[in-house]
Amino acid sequence: MTKINDGKTTEAPTMNDVARRAGVSAMTVSRALKEGSHVSSATRERITRAINELGYVLDQSAGSLSSRRTGFVAAIIPSINNSNFSDTARGITDALEGTGLQLLLGYTNYSVEREEELIEAMLRRRPEGIILTGGSHTPKGRRMLEQAGIPVIETWDRPAQPIDKVVGFSNGEAMELLVETLARKGYRRFGYIGGVTARDTRGSQRRAGFVRALERLGLSSDRVISFGVPPISMEQGAQAVVSMLERWPDTQVALCVSDLSAFGALMECQRRGLKVPQDIAIAGFGDYEIAACCHPRMTTVNVDCYGIGRQAALKLTQTIQAQSPGTPEPVTLTGFRVIEREST
Amino acid sequence: MTKINDGKTTEAPTMNDVARRAGVSAMTVSRALKEGSHVSSATRERITRAINELGYVLDQSAGSLSSRRTGFVAAIIPSINNSNFSDTARGITDALEGTGLQLLLGYTNYSVEREEELIEAMLRRRPEGIILTGGSHTPKGRRMLEQAGIPVIETWDRPAQPIDKVVGFSNGEAMELLVETLARKGYRRFGYIGGVTARDTRGSQRRAGFVRALERLGLSSDRVISFGVPPISMEQGAQAVVSMLERWPDTQVALCVSDLSAFGALMECQRRGLKVPQDIAIAGFGDYEIAACCHPRMTTVNVDCYGIGRQAALKLTQTIQAQSPGTPEPVTLTGFRVIEREST
Repeated sequence: MTKINDGKTTEAPTMNDVARRAGVSAMTVSRALKEGSHVSSATRERITRAINELGYVLDQSAGSLSSRRTGFVAAIIPSINNSNFSDTARGITDALEGTGLQLLLGYTNYSVEREEELIEAMLRRRPEGIILTGGSHTPKGRRMLEQAGIPVIETWDRPAQPIDKVVGFSNGEAMELLVETLARKGYRRFGYIGGVTARDTRGSQRRAGFVRALERLGLSSDRVISFGVPPISMEQGAQAVVSMLERWPDTQVALCVSDLSAFGALMECQRRGLKVPQDIAIAGFGDYEIAACCHPRMTTVNVDCYGIGRQAALKLTQTIQAQSPGTPEPVTLTGFRVIEREST
Repeated sequence: MTKINDGKTTEAPTMNDVARRAGVSAMTVSRALKEGSHVSSATRERITRAINELGYVLDQSAGSLSSRRTGFVAAIIPSINNSNFSDTARGITDALEGTGLQLLLGYTNYSVEREEELIEAMLRRRPEGIILTGGSHTPKGRRMLEQAGIPVIETWDRPAQPIDKVVGFSNGEAMELLVETLARKGYRRFGYIGGVTARDTRGSQRRAGFVRALERLGLSSDRVISFGVPPISMEQGAQAVVSMLERWPDTQVALCVSDLSAFGALMECQRRGLKVPQDIAIAGFGDYEIAACCHPRMTTVNVDCYGIGRQAALKLTQTIQAQSPGTPEPVTLTGFRVIEREST
């Protein structure tokens, strides 16, 4: 591989260049770079100096390895932009630190078709394991995952038929808990703000949980505003709460599919001179930083996004390293809890 | 590679498995998978069916390729969590779509030492190019990049001595423009809220720009609160504005290193019954979604985070594909502009 730089052509230094500079054989350099190998400390020092002077980097691309270890794992998330999933990605990255595995990250923009493409692109590079968001995939995507011969972890969901292993929770149950908590506080007229759900299975599960809980309580579940393509933005949350208050002016509490849309709704209510929670209460989902910091501070559901990523990566590395079958546990259910703040 | 799944051991299907199922030779399968190759449509159909039934995925890990093309590029960003850099990463991903190159993303948590480790880990896997955030690296990190023999793009900065190519802007000049804009509106007593800058070169450049612009205007640049390890959070912005108002109660406008800390400051002022901008004006940096949506809407500096990523990835792919030296342009300066809103 050559680089054109200021008219000079440079080549990446090779192991032979290091050997020449250190005055040893390439074999000795190769040996010195293996952990636990026996090379005299004087020789090792000469080699290290040569490596640093040349800026040499060991080649660990798959072609240079004798085993099938490619040294990376893949993760597919819906979005890396201002979302809970970036916390999950951070949890994965942190848990991989020191394992020698790097993360190859792809994002689907909430599309299962894009997920299918990504699954194929990722698997072509032979990751040692793969982490997915949710349990809904295209039939072809699912088949590729089933046949990949590597550990597969589905997260952020409780699929009825897991492909392999699961780290997640039921989005529907989490929303039911929020409705029940607020109903105990005396709220009766609930509204729901979410995106058009076809592309967002977690969003549709939350909405289904909203409906289930209200039906169980004998309350109306009609006040649903579906607005915009997921993930709905702060601005769309602002517009949705306006629609809700036009159609159902006596709504007591608006539950939103995420803290971002809830924040947009909260700011819009203030802009219109409505007091939160006195005139209308608002609650979000996800416990983003913004929910704890906005004024008034926002009631939401905490779902341990970071922990999901961390535990998924730990389960993945344990499975990759596992000598005996059966470990680790196939399903890890992660917790969720309602955080009551000033907005309800 | 084997997977233990429900007690069964499965192996990923191979090209031979596809050939057997389709009733053709492995060579024919291999030929059918190459673009523009001549295989009869009936045969191709049989092969495609076998591939789909088996969930076979072509092996494109480096070991299976005849060339040195590894099919991925690396990008190193400070943080993927609720930050401008996730927009940059999105710009990179979008620009790479359809190029056959996948993105391997690493994040440094604002540490040059962690950046050095990541540079080495990435280069070991032989990316076809690498995108960095900022122009400050450890000496060893810089040397590895100089010697890598691949295109290197530094972003979000205007380094005096670029390693190779640059897509970015001067953070200092952008902050100077904000100070000048607000001074023209009549503000005289400016405060600045940022993190402890040792780890954040962009933050220290912004603070230096703040000081430079005020000195040029003959105004005091003393009111600086350095608070917390970058990236400073919304909550730290809230605490910092309290410190500022205790020390310098007559501050007219607080400029913050990012929109997130500015948002925290804005909410805290409201909690304390201060009117923004009447009692104190607040401005941020970065033009996050939150700046356009909060109440009052926030004045900030837009720096085209997404465009930086997009242009960096385009420059990278153009360089990778370039037949002749000299293309593309070594330095692309990206724009910035002040967005005046209700908070000033």
